[in-house]
Amino acid sequence: MSLVRVHNFSISLDGFGVGEGQRLDQPFGHAGTRLLEWAIPTRTFARMGQHGEAAGADGTTGVDEAFASQWAAGIGAEIMGRNKFEPLAGLPDGEEWRGWWGEDPPFHTPVVVLTHEPRPPLEMAGGTTFYFLDATPAEALARARELAGGGDIRIGGGTSTVREFLAADLIDEMHIAVVPILLGRGERLWDGLEGLETRFRIETVASPSGVVHLTFARRR
Amino acid sequence: MSLVRVHNFSISLDGFGVGEGQRLDQPFGHAGTRLLEWAIPTRTFARMGQHGEAAGADGTTGVDEAFASQWAAGIGAEIMGRNKFEPLAGLPDGEEWRGWWGEDPPFHTPVVVLTHEPRPPLEMAGGTTFYFLDATPAEALARARELAGGGDIRIGGGTSTVREFLAADLIDEMHIAVVPILLGRGERLWDGLEGLETRFRIETVASPSGVVHLTFARRR
Repeated sequence: MSLVRVHNFSISLDGFGVGEGQRLDQPFGHAGTRLLEWAIPTRTFARMGQHGEAAGADGTTGVDEAFASQWAAGIGAEIMGRNKFEPLAGLPDGEEWRGWWGEDPPFHTPVVVLTHEPRPPLEMAGGTTFYFLDATPAEALARARELAGGGDIRIGGGTSTVREFLAADLIDEMHIAVVPILLGRGERLWDGLEGLETRFRIETVASPSGVVHLTFARRR
Repeated sequence: MSLVRVHNFSISLDGFGVGEGQRLDQPFGHAGTRLLEWAIPTRTFARMGQHGEAAGADGTTGVDEAFASQWAAGIGAEIMGRNKFEPLAGLPDGEEWRGWWGEDPPFHTPVVVLTHEPRPPLEMAGGTTFYFLDATPAEALARARELAGGGDIRIGGGTSTVREFLAADLIDEMHIAVVPILLGRGERLWDGLEGLETRFRIETVASPSGVVHLTFARRR
């Protein structure tokens, strides 16, 4: 059976995966880019083309890159929540929203978008097609596996989507980056997950960037 | 001026410094001893005499011990909250409560106990005297400095006491150990402290025990 994986999911030290006030001009709310700053300079992100100038052509190697680089290999489909796909507020009137990522999104696989407003699939360049589904986590996972051609499934966020898949015990491997900032408000990843550690082997490593990487691997 | 320091303060991955249901027979509530398990085997704790048999005579060295060992040096007085000094529930009727630590507590300095029910000082063996004060954090700190003979002041907990001293910007150095468990309920350390990181330089190191040690040093 293919694995269900989470990669590069960043939270603040106080557990928030996104700040308050998410909208078109601030996808992470009042958190701004602070949860992502450890990842932006890495080679993996630099080569996505969006941050190449800031990072230098090749980006950093090292422990942050070692984790960042694992997000794509072996993945056959992603599942994301509505709040990762589109802003909660500030959508331009009358225009079709086609995601935050431009015409050639970095996924290059089918992407299942969980939403209460299903619509026809949206095919983008580069192999990314968005499928809009009103479904439980288990149903979405079944659909993603159909689309994934035997590959693994990445749970791409946002915060409540990762939390719901954890609560439903559907996640096999998870990489969380804890950023040493206190957001104070927003959406918490860990709510309602008391005792989660008993289901996983957990490793921790601190990066010179200040981020702590945690890996969770399901106990078998 | 002497420093105000926090040492060996343990929280769960979801930010709880104590579980729910604190009482005489479970000082950390439903957390049990899980927040302390990284510290119990260390040489510092082993030599406190309370856990020597479990840990072997000398206890562990290594990164956990390197942090644990720093709690006493240079300290002239501790400040603790009522909830660290005595149970919220289950106090034996008619007996005077003399702390959790027996007749020779491990502090060996004056200890200011914040409480809404002040009473005369309680002198124990080994140099520990408890002073009971109904005071703000700043007032308690002033009193502790009078008692400390020029030494540093340790803020000993519990959770709300550390949080209140952070909120009042009275802490110079802080060591937090993040234990990779999810308690789900209890008292959160980080509530109301948005932006705390801007006041401190923060370092992180992961221990083979699974704990992540964070040090906060006030920016000057």
